Amino acid sequence: MKQIKEKNMVFGIRAVMEAIDAGKEIEKVFMRRELGGELAKELADRLSERRVPVLRVPIEKLNRMTMKNHQGVVAFTSSIEYQSVEHVIPALYDEGRLPFIVMLDGVTDVRNFGAIARTCECAGVDAIVVPMKGGAAANADAIKTSAGALHKIPVCRENSLHNTVSYLQKCGVRVIAASEKAAHSYVEADYSGPVAIVLGAEDTGISHDILRICDDMVSIPVRGQIGSLNVSVAGGIIIYEALKQRM
Amino acid sequence: MKQIKEKNMVFGIRAVMEAIDAGKEIEKVFMRRELGGELAKELADRLSERRVPVLRVPIEKLNRMTMKNHQGVVAFTSSIEYQSVEHVIPALYDEGRLPFIVMLDGVTDVRNFGAIARTCECAGVDAIVVPMKGGAAANADAIKTSAGALHKIPVCRENSLHNTVSYLQKCGVRVIAASEKAAHSYVEADYSGPVAIVLGAEDTGISHDILRICDDMVSIPVRGQIGSLNVSVAGGIIIYEALKQRM
Repeated sequence: MKQIKEKNMVFGIRAVMEAIDAGKEIEKVFMRRELGGELAKELADRLSERRVPVLRVPIEKLNRMTMKNHQGVVAFTSSIEYQSVEHVIPALYDEGRLPFIVMLDGVTDVRNFGAIARTCECAGVDAIVVPMKGGAAANADAIKTSAGALHKIPVCRENSLHNTVSYLQKCGVRVIAASEKAAHSYVEADYSGPVAIVLGAEDTGISHDILRICDDMVSIPVRGQIGSLNVSVAGGIIIYEALKQRM
Repeated sequence: MKQIKEKNMVFGIRAVMEAIDAGKEIEKVFMRRELGGELAKELADRLSERRVPVLRVPIEKLNRMTMKNHQGVVAFTSSIEYQSVEHVIPALYDEGRLPFIVMLDGVTDVRNFGAIARTCECAGVDAIVVPMKGGAAANADAIKTSAGALHKIPVCRENSLHNTVSYLQKCGVRVIAASEKAAHSYVEADYSGPVAIVLGAEDTGISHDILRICDDMVSIPVRGQIGSLNVSVAGGIIIYEALKQRM
């Protein structure tokens, strides 16, 4: 939690509801596991409507976040405005553009997230897709590392990346997974049409259920003993190969 | 100084001399500006012989580093063994290999340094060249970010990168600078022979006196508003373009 400045913190059921009413973007909400009651239910419904991740936690975790009277609810507001692929993709086609998307499946390091966002902005990527849960927070460190890119490029936060991959495919987007397990090289793939590049978690890579449905799987050849690149570097290499083909 | 663990710290003139005698690699030495005397001179000579950077600083700086009795000298040991291009390059030619070098001119962020080292190891780069002064320390954070690459790939620490570029050129190595100012794209350059890729500082890029003598200058095309990539991502893109041509 270190990276999240307290100014982004809102606590108390009513205060969080007011933040929502005021149009604030909520990054995520920590809620006391046992929290019940009419008001808490209303809050939970509103958060679910707005697709804000809610994490049920023991009260001790909330107490560690703030010494103030949190009433079982601590929310973190975000300075970036999340969008949805279901709005972004049709809008791109309407503009006569071929979507160029980057999806992050479990990238957890905020600096990797930021560096990838910066690369995306520089390469003219149309949107970044991240999961509702399990991804790096778009916090101050991520925004700083992104050199502000997270404020300039649409970020779509989706409940199920599996469903998002299916949706993209229905829209004619070719989904290409970057995986060390892939037999063929990233330079052999075709990125010229509507395309989404999927990058996986720093440690475990792309989750199996997503890997399974992607249209193509590519790897970056490595020599040496380490055997894998940093995910933001790997992303840069593949995104720029794609850009080269698209120019 | 935060990143340097105290276990890498040696203080006192005699203790530093003993560390040298014991064959420890010294990263850099901070010496009190006014420090004189026979022993201090002997230490300075030995450090100069071993091409260890010595920074003359006010005593207050040393006092902030350690509360122990430093006697005007604080040294940081390195866990990596530095080499010299004048040994590395001829050895590569002797093995019948075409040198593939990456030079960092003023990359100061330890995580960028580490990520670039990791990319170099993965791409089969033969050596990394860094300046004696003004570069990122090969400290614990750098080694961690490099996934251990800094222990696997030769790192050459050179007094003058300008002289090193000249030396490389005399050895038949084509020196290619990555610079946003370059008119032609990184994909148009020829990396197939003996080659060194020069990457510059995060903020100011490659210093002018080095840029001036390089054989070629390449840029990575950017769209969007940010206008520049993270240096470790940019390095990855160019290093992998080079690798593609060399395979």
